[in-house]
Amino acid sequence: MKLIEPTLLLDKNKCLQNIKRMLKKANQHDVRLRPHFKTAQSWEVGRWYREQGVSGITVSSLKMAEYFAKDGWTDITVAFPVNILEIGRINQLAQQIRLNLLVMNVDSVLYLADHLKKGVDIYIDIDTGYHRTGLPADDYEHIDRILACIRASDKLHFRGFLTHDGHTYQVKGKEAVNKIYQQSVSLLHGLKQKYRPQWPELEVSLGDTPSCSLVEDLSGVDEIRPGNFVFYDLMQATIGSCTAEQIAVVMACPVVTKNEATNTVVIHGGAVHFSKDFLIDEEGKPYYGQMVLLTDEGWTEPVEGYLVALSQEHGTVQLPEDVAESVQVGSVLGVLPVHSCLTADVMGHYFTLEDEKIEMMPK
Amino acid sequence: MKLIEPTLLLDKNKCLQNIKRMLKKANQHDVRLRPHFKTAQSWEVGRWYREQGVSGITVSSLKMAEYFAKDGWTDITVAFPVNILEIGRINQLAQQIRLNLLVMNVDSVLYLADHLKKGVDIYIDIDTGYHRTGLPADDYEHIDRILACIRASDKLHFRGFLTHDGHTYQVKGKEAVNKIYQQSVSLLHGLKQKYRPQWPELEVSLGDTPSCSLVEDLSGVDEIRPGNFVFYDLMQATIGSCTAEQIAVVMACPVVTKNEATNTVVIHGGAVHFSKDFLIDEEGKPYYGQMVLLTDEGWTEPVEGYLVALSQEHGTVQLPEDVAESVQVGSVLGVLPVHSCLTADVMGHYFTLEDEKIEMMPK
Repeated sequence: MKLIEPTLLLDKNKCLQNIKRMLKKANQHDVRLRPHFKTAQSWEVGRWYREQGVSGITVSSLKMAEYFAKDGWTDITVAFPVNILEIGRINQLAQQIRLNLLVMNVDSVLYLADHLKKGVDIYIDIDTGYHRTGLPADDYEHIDRILACIRASDKLHFRGFLTHDGHTYQVKGKEAVNKIYQQSVSLLHGLKQKYRPQWPELEVSLGDTPSCSLVEDLSGVDEIRPGNFVFYDLMQATIGSCTAEQIAVVMACPVVTKNEATNTVVIHGGAVHFSKDFLIDEEGKPYYGQMVLLTDEGWTEPVEGYLVALSQEHGTVQLPEDVAESVQVGSVLGVLPVHSCLTADVMGHYFTLEDEKIEMMPK
Repeated sequence: MKLIEPTLLLDKNKCLQNIKRMLKKANQHDVRLRPHFKTAQSWEVGRWYREQGVSGITVSSLKMAEYFAKDGWTDITVAFPVNILEIGRINQLAQQIRLNLLVMNVDSVLYLADHLKKGVDIYIDIDTGYHRTGLPADDYEHIDRILACIRASDKLHFRGFLTHDGHTYQVKGKEAVNKIYQQSVSLLHGLKQKYRPQWPELEVSLGDTPSCSLVEDLSGVDEIRPGNFVFYDLMQATIGSCTAEQIAVVMACPVVTKNEATNTVVIHGGAVHFSKDFLIDEEGKPYYGQMVLLTDEGWTEPVEGYLVALSQEHGTVQLPEDVAESVQVGSVLGVLPVHSCLTADVMGHYFTLEDEKIEMMPK
């Protein structure tokens, strides 16, 4: 394929391996994989999951739920505290699919009970340590009030407790991630024990990519909802969730100028292609991607070259001397992204190595 | 208008005032305003410039040049070092419009000379201190070699020297910005004096929003190319380029949950709506936006509430107590963006206060 402009390459084979590996692990421990589709945001990638037997999915907005419902998904969890202003869209979607919503306050639940025209499933958002959203696992008073509202409504069906351990992104290695996971499972188990007598079918759902990748035995929960693992990225490689070789996306960027004296090149590839998420190197400096060399079959293992500066369309790359020698104006370099979800989001589409264009959810 | 999901609001009146103010200043000093269209990336906003008499524009990619050429712009500068891999598109576009390209190395110039089918105008990229791209203003040997290649080609027409003072973004206040501007103008003047005998029509072009907003007398250059000023943002307000009231875009975000104890709310509004550019507050903490209250006519002056955390779709807002009292689940808050160019880029479209949808360049 002829690359002439910044292009997000997707190695379908690596992506399929990532899907199959996670699904196998979930099946082994009798846990449902309900993958988060916010990473790829794509019908086509969604179909690769479906071909592997996945039937329920997670999304991060109602708009995204609508998008995937149009492609035939009929069991969708919106893992974002319900936005009551979207009640019209919720009612419309609930007529078509099994819609699972997330709540964390009585106000929203009462509003739903008053305005829903069709039944929906409800998860209560539990904060097991990330402190972004969710009720503390011991806030029984609040949980009981929400459950009472659910019980009183013929439109609300309690499904269980859901958490997102985003704080696994702030640690490194299997041991640290495992510690967070075990803590969360213990809290979720406590809730399950407490509320199962009244709600015998309640489930607990957890789902960050580091936990789902690194924890060996996932049988402590009923459902996992990882998303990023479908592509992985440098952030996950740094945490230890994946190897660099498992990263399934690479930005291909043309070199527009080269400084022979410093072994730096400027590429067409900036914040509108990568987003601005970064990692910090050993010297405390930010970097936005790591270099690979493109080959006929895809790309090589990473080389010691980094995307060290980023403006709207410019990227500055520091190359090792031996690589710099072979790079010139008109070369195309590969860059492993720091955060594949955001890189995919700003790019808006992919090209497979077979030059097939894969569309994403329109903005 | 009914706001139910994250929506980028554009106050057309403020935007028009920003355009008219900059145009008036340019006219007063007999300097051509060639606005950079990478900020709005929109035919509609482009037309507002055209109605004010603007005829030449700046863009940051060939794709963007093609997009605006389709809406009738016939004099376009691509202010990004030419990507020779796009020669096919360059040849196609050069047949339709006056295309001005930027170069900074002999390789690219020789390639253009060999492969162009139609004449293009050429600017040489000069580094006046930002150190992103461009030749040092005293690298006469390199400049002479490029000029010799241009002279030898019947397809290349030398237009002049172009610089971007991105380092004005790293300072604050009129004095500091003025110092950078005067330094750059002095370097550009030196080049003009040296090369005008051979190239009597050569021009010098400069164009960052801080300089163009803060420097009182812009008559030292032939052309200015600011872009961000069309909307401005918190970053520009912090530099001093604008007042908060001149910022023409606001993200409207629904409140999905509220913590009464801490006066924080979570909004639907994350990295896929704002991008991840941030400013640092007095305590050294990052923030991604500042709150305004939405009104029937637009929005208020900023209040002391900040967007303090951002994940893919979640935003956490710290509100002052008096504002928090009036905010509840289902409220819609306004957020002034830190960097409007990237916020616009991730959102993909605007809504005016009159509820008119304004499309942007497709991804």
